[in-house]
Amino acid sequence: MNAVTPRPRARDAGIVIGTGRTGTHNAITDVPGVRVGHVTLVRGEGPLRVGHGPVRTGVTAILPPGEDWYAEPVEAAHFVFNGAGTTAGLSLIDEFGRIETPVALTNTLSVGTVYEGVVRYMVERIFAPCGEVPWFSPVVGETSDAYLNDIGGLHVRPEHAVQAIENAASGPVDEGAVGGGTGMTAFGLKGGIGTASRVLEMEGEGAAIGVLVQANFGGRLTVAGIPMVELQSPDPVPARETGASIMIVVATDLPLSSRLLHRVCKRATFGLARAGSDGGHGSGDYVIGFSTTYRRPGAMPRTRETLARQEVLINDAFRLVADATEEAILNALFRAERMVGRDGHVREALPLDRVLEILDRHRARRHEA
Amino acid sequence: MNAVTPRPRARDAGIVIGTGRTGTHNAITDVPGVRVGHVTLVRGEGPLRVGHGPVRTGVTAILPPGEDWYAEPVEAAHFVFNGAGTTAGLSLIDEFGRIETPVALTNTLSVGTVYEGVVRYMVERIFAPCGEVPWFSPVVGETSDAYLNDIGGLHVRPEHAVQAIENAASGPVDEGAVGGGTGMTAFGLKGGIGTASRVLEMEGEGAAIGVLVQANFGGRLTVAGIPMVELQSPDPVPARETGASIMIVVATDLPLSSRLLHRVCKRATFGLARAGSDGGHGSGDYVIGFSTTYRRPGAMPRTRETLARQEVLINDAFRLVADATEEAILNALFRAERMVGRDGHVREALPLDRVLEILDRHRARRHEA
Amino acid sequence: MNAVTPRPRARDAGIVIGTGRTGTHNAITDVPGVRVGHVTLVRGEGPLRVGHGPVRTGVTAILPPGEDWYAEPVEAAHFVFNGAGTTAGLSLIDEFGRIETPVALTNTLSVGTVYEGVVRYMVERIFAPCGEVPWFSPVVGETSDAYLNDIGGLHVRPEHAVQAIENAASGPVDEGAVGGGTGMTAFGLKGGIGTASRVLEMEGEGAAIGVLVQANFGGRLTVAGIPMVELQSPDPVPARETGASIMIVVATDLPLSSRLLHRVCKRATFGLARAGSDGGHGSGDYVIGFSTTYRRPGAMPRTRETLARQEVLINDAFRLVADATEEAILNALFRAERMVGRDGHVREALPLDRVLEILDRHRARRHEA
Amino acid sequence: MNAVTPRPRARDAGIVIGTGRTGTHNAITDVPGVRVGHVTLVRGEGPLRVGHGPVRTGVTAILPPGEDWYAEPVEAAHFVFNGAGTTAGLSLIDEFGRIETPVALTNTLSVGTVYEGVVRYMVERIFAPCGEVPWFSPVVGETSDAYLNDIGGLHVRPEHAVQAIENAASGPVDEGAVGGGTGMTAFGLKGGIGTASRVLEMEGEGAAIGVLVQANFGGRLTVAGIPMVELQSPDPVPARETGASIMIVVATDLPLSSRLLHRVCKRATFGLARAGSDGGHGSGDYVIGFSTTYRRPGAMPRTRETLARQEVLINDAFRLVADATEEAILNALFRAERMVGRDGHVREALPLDRVLEILDRHRARRHEA
Repeated sequence: MNAVTPRPRARDAGIVIGTGRTGTHNAITDVPGVRVGHVTLVRGEGPLRVGHGPVRTGVTAILPPGEDWYAEPVEAAHFVFNGAGTTAGLSLIDEFGRIETPVALTNTLSVGTVYEGVVRYMVERIFAPCGEVPWFSPVVGETSDAYLNDIGGLHVRPEHAVQAIENAASGPVDEGAVGGGTGMTAFGLKGGIGTASRVLEMEGEGAAIGVLVQANFGGRLTVAGIPMVELQSPDPVPARETGASIMIVVATDLPLSSRLLHRVCKRATFGLARAGSDGGHGSGDYVIGFSTTYRRPGAMPRTRETLARQEVLINDAFRLVADATEEAILNALFRAERMVGRDGHVREALPLDRVLEILDRHRARRHEA
Repeated sequence: MNAVTPRPRARDAGIVIGTGRTGTHNAITDVPGVRVGHVTLVRGEGPLRVGHGPVRTGVTAILPPGEDWYAEPVEAAHFVFNGAGTTAGLSLIDEFGRIETPVALTNTLSVGTVYEGVVRYMVERIFAPCGEVPWFSPVVGETSDAYLNDIGGLHVRPEHAVQAIENAASGPVDEGAVGGGTGMTAFGLKGGIGTASRVLEMEGEGAAIGVLVQANFGGRLTVAGIPMVELQSPDPVPARETGASIMIVVATDLPLSSRLLHRVCKRATFGLARAGSDGGHGSGDYVIGFSTTYRRPGAMPRTRETLARQEVLINDAFRLVADATEEAILNALFRAERMVGRDGHVREALPLDRVLEILDRHRARRHEA
Repeated sequence: MNAVTPRPRARDAGIVIGTGRTGTHNAITDVPGVRVGHVTLVRGEGPLRVGHGPVRTGVTAILPPGEDWYAEPVEAAHFVFNGAGTTAGLSLIDEFGRIETPVALTNTLSVGTVYEGVVRYMVERIFAPCGEVPWFSPVVGETSDAYLNDIGGLHVRPEHAVQAIENAASGPVDEGAVGGGTGMTAFGLKGGIGTASRVLEMEGEGAAIGVLVQANFGGRLTVAGIPMVELQSPDPVPARETGASIMIVVATDLPLSSRLLHRVCKRATFGLARAGSDGGHGSGDYVIGFSTTYRRPGAMPRTRETLARQEVLINDAFRLVADATEEAILNALFRAERMVGRDGHVREALPLDRVLEILDRHRARRHEA
Repeated sequence: MNAVTPRPRARDAGIVIGTGRTGTHNAITDVPGVRVGHVTLVRGEGPLRVGHGPVRTGVTAILPPGEDWYAEPVEAAHFVFNGAGTTAGLSLIDEFGRIETPVALTNTLSVGTVYEGVVRYMVERIFAPCGEVPWFSPVVGETSDAYLNDIGGLHVRPEHAVQAIENAASGPVDEGAVGGGTGMTAFGLKGGIGTASRVLEMEGEGAAIGVLVQANFGGRLTVAGIPMVELQSPDPVPARETGASIMIVVATDLPLSSRLLHRVCKRATFGLARAGSDGGHGSGDYVIGFSTTYRRPGAMPRTRETLARQEVLINDAFRLVADATEEAILNALFRAERMVGRDGHVREALPLDRVLEILDRHRARRHEA
């Protein structure tokens, strides 16, 4: 591993989580129609001057299928494992069981600005042309990059949220220190964006569960069951200040109601536990899930038979979402490069060679990369 | 009643809700240290041109005691009766049981912008001087003024939130079409901001419960138990579009834990019911409560004796918060003047003479104004 | 009104709540297939001897349609307004969105015994014949009759629950001091079981919302908006000891998902508020709702069109459930006769003549009985 | 390992979970004043005859300190990870933040009977002597032993619950196929009761967190991070029928409010995840927690300083409760002996030799037993 060879994803290094099969890109974009876009802001170095930088932050947008999410919302649910943070839009998800905008991720203090950006995008592209602007409820999550970034400087502007939505594409997803994950920390090492997916059979056809995380939390990093505590630099800054947190976004084309999606979201925390999170006091741990097919006309009529089949599928979904979450967290760490931020604060990259050495000592790699 | 004589508050017109005693100003500011500030934006008339107006909106800020709410947070809780809207900051209230910023109210699409404004205020006044900016979680609520206001134009700017905080004062509170309530509608009539308070005895000293509402909801207006259906102009616009909602903010200097405050917040909805809300599908009905004394050193040690006394007091608190909420809603309607908004949309003021005539017919006024 | 003429229901006395239309029996049994059965236990008088009486208690069973509720469960939801009590079975309602047994109501300390009775009924009638007994989760609610009844004597036996289920019938429902409501108190007067219903149009056909309450709570009794405080004997026993509570069961043949039923359950508390509940600290206030049609094959496929129509209907459902709840509470009080219980404790019947006199003074009756 | 040498607990076999220190007995009884009692019912063999056996079931009672839990309740909270089951008493825990009876565990269909037993115990020992019986709310949890036990026969009687309370003692706790855990299954192997504890420093003195589980769930058994999938006999019976579930009871003498206890309960699920649970659809996974000191007069006044210290301690509590839960689950499996139940159904004991062999292959034992 060096700067010339790009850092591999966990699976490329022979680390296999669970027994399920991944989707084509092993990414949230394996759910048909789902797109992801990043805007990454890295500017300046040296001492923190609030309002001037250094800047290590960004925005990531996850787009449900289609272009008019208000007219064609996706069924949705959420689960807050630890509410030490803020996510705009959760109460509408509870009440109406739906998401009617892109889901955007950024730093904690920029939630409002990104909310305004999503509003501007929706008003300009969707509502203004019709001449009638309704109320709607953007979904914006966050974790804190205060350790590396001039978080008080509010360098994310509304137009960055617009741009992240415009950048969104299907296919492979950039991971590590990009988008909302740019300035994030996990286990005292460089964290950020990671993604993974699993596929399962439903009615003879494939369906996918995709997970994208913005990983910024602490604990004892555990890879495939093996603790990596010796690799972690002890975090010198109290958790409340650094904001140890994770946003987990789950997408699926299984036709799951909000009630079932809520249950799926809960199981994502099993992956978080297995990756070694300590569920810390100051860690805002949020899971947001949506189904791209539940609200489609005729996708799967809610007859008694399909309800029964849904309950059979749900056990697979429970198992796979935990696995995909665990792997998405590993991918965030595997792909993230070392970063120097404000005041010379450093987050080292996960030392991959030593990880693999420890795993091999424990015979915990399933195959060689 | 005419334009020369200002419109009275409900109690000044002889309408008495419940048997409790009001505080000095019959306002949320009767809770010592609590301040309220408004910024009201009214500009332009004629057809809607998104981004240009007409503008009928604003911001209302409710300040917990003190100047550094992050260092000295208030104990807090919330209850979502109907989550058809958005309120930033609820999950931190749940998790940490506290509020660490002012509580700001505005229109739905401006929640993000006001969030940024609160962040700017906190960073500039509190954190930047110390050189370290932590993450924190502003509380920003909303209802929709889309019927009268160019809501898509985002005319509320971050500096309006800063200004609302700076405008905050103790003493009487402006009501009706002011601040966040400027463009709001209730029962098809002009709604907006209203407030009321109740006092009770605790340990031989007075304690207060204050309520402030941003009233924008529908149903069958009921004054002191008497339905006023005949006075309401039927709403020509579907609820989802107009955003029929209410934000209820409850403050008290009773030393109530988040668990007890949550229970108090639930009882506020009894006042909402009695004022005639139909709890409509598209009505975002949120209650946020805080105690100004619970977290103060030594205010009331949590011994078994005080826990027991707390449970005795709580029944009074339950009754009084419902009464204060009902009266605050009436005050919003009593004080709000007729408004013409975008596209010539009109919200008439509640016709007070007819209200009093109906009440007198039913012998439902307790005394003459 | 005297012992010869039976006490009228509220509507028969000219009291009309809301503008909706009632079903045939103005009872929860207006929902097709729903049946109600009571077992009433009244034995002994004089001083309390724990284990010997006097006995003033019973069981009420509300049966979803059909005979095998496990194989054909109804979609369900619940809302706890105040959890000062216990209801068995709520977590399964949340998790699976369904009820798979009858719903039984009794006194607080007999919840376990009635749970066993429901288990016995299900095992003997449904499972034992097939030779395989699965786990399942009975729904049993309660309020406390400790003021009139030897509650510690556990006079309700499992066979009484079985018998209440066997007694269940469609058509008119006995109200007042019967079944689970036998020993209950409301507003310091005799309370008990009450029911009411509303009908609405859906797709050109009628649908019903039925409510049954076991009313045992306190506050300021309010009839059609008019407070009846002067009629209430002040309660000499602290609320915690008497158990001021209400169980509200809502049934409908609208095809509502658990998410929507949860929202309907919340609106039932608006009727509770309007009837004058103070939502007291020790009052266990629970709402349980079920839809008899949602899980039926083909009843209403969950296409996007029907989801949209569902949202239109929901506003009617919200309004009507509040009205039916308010009227069901009034019916409990109107129909309940004076009762003398243990230790000579007395609960007077609501003095109907005086109620009507007060209403007439306020011109609050819609028509004469 | 053979029938002569008793099966070791996990730690005695060299398996160490986390870095924390255990209490004296590595049991929930390490929390001062907490006692545990079992009643184990094993009778008959051969084919199931509902009502006649074979019987493989029981009751486990966990007693908060003292003798009159109603007069001196413990502060409490709960978290339902998956509500596929039933636990009586949860809503009072939410509303009043307390538990006022022993906590009893049994099989699913016997919850009611055990509820009656707890009521009988409380009435006879505590209330009847004073001549006044209030309402109160027993806490009774369950998992399903339908695979081994004649669950429909209701062989647990109220007196068994009384006896389990009377059997309760401090000191070491019997584990495996005892009490409520008698007929339980985990990972297709014999499950049952397990316990563990951790100690931490608070204000210079020790405090304990103890966990007791009734383990009956499925997934891929994972010991110290290493999956044991090869050891599990695939479960031939669908989860819904066998009832794959876990009850987790957490006790501590840290002075934690219900809000903080709720957060601690959530972290217990991290231990469940790491032990390999798949969080299955039909698995009722409940966590109940209580603090023995929070409500004691003067134990720790809730001043601002102590609130701050509490937040520091809470991170330790979060980490340790997950570790203790994981270890308690392992102890249930390590200690449980093979059992033959109804219809010749067999649950093999966890093959310890092979477990240790696999762990050693992965170098995952910390030290030799």
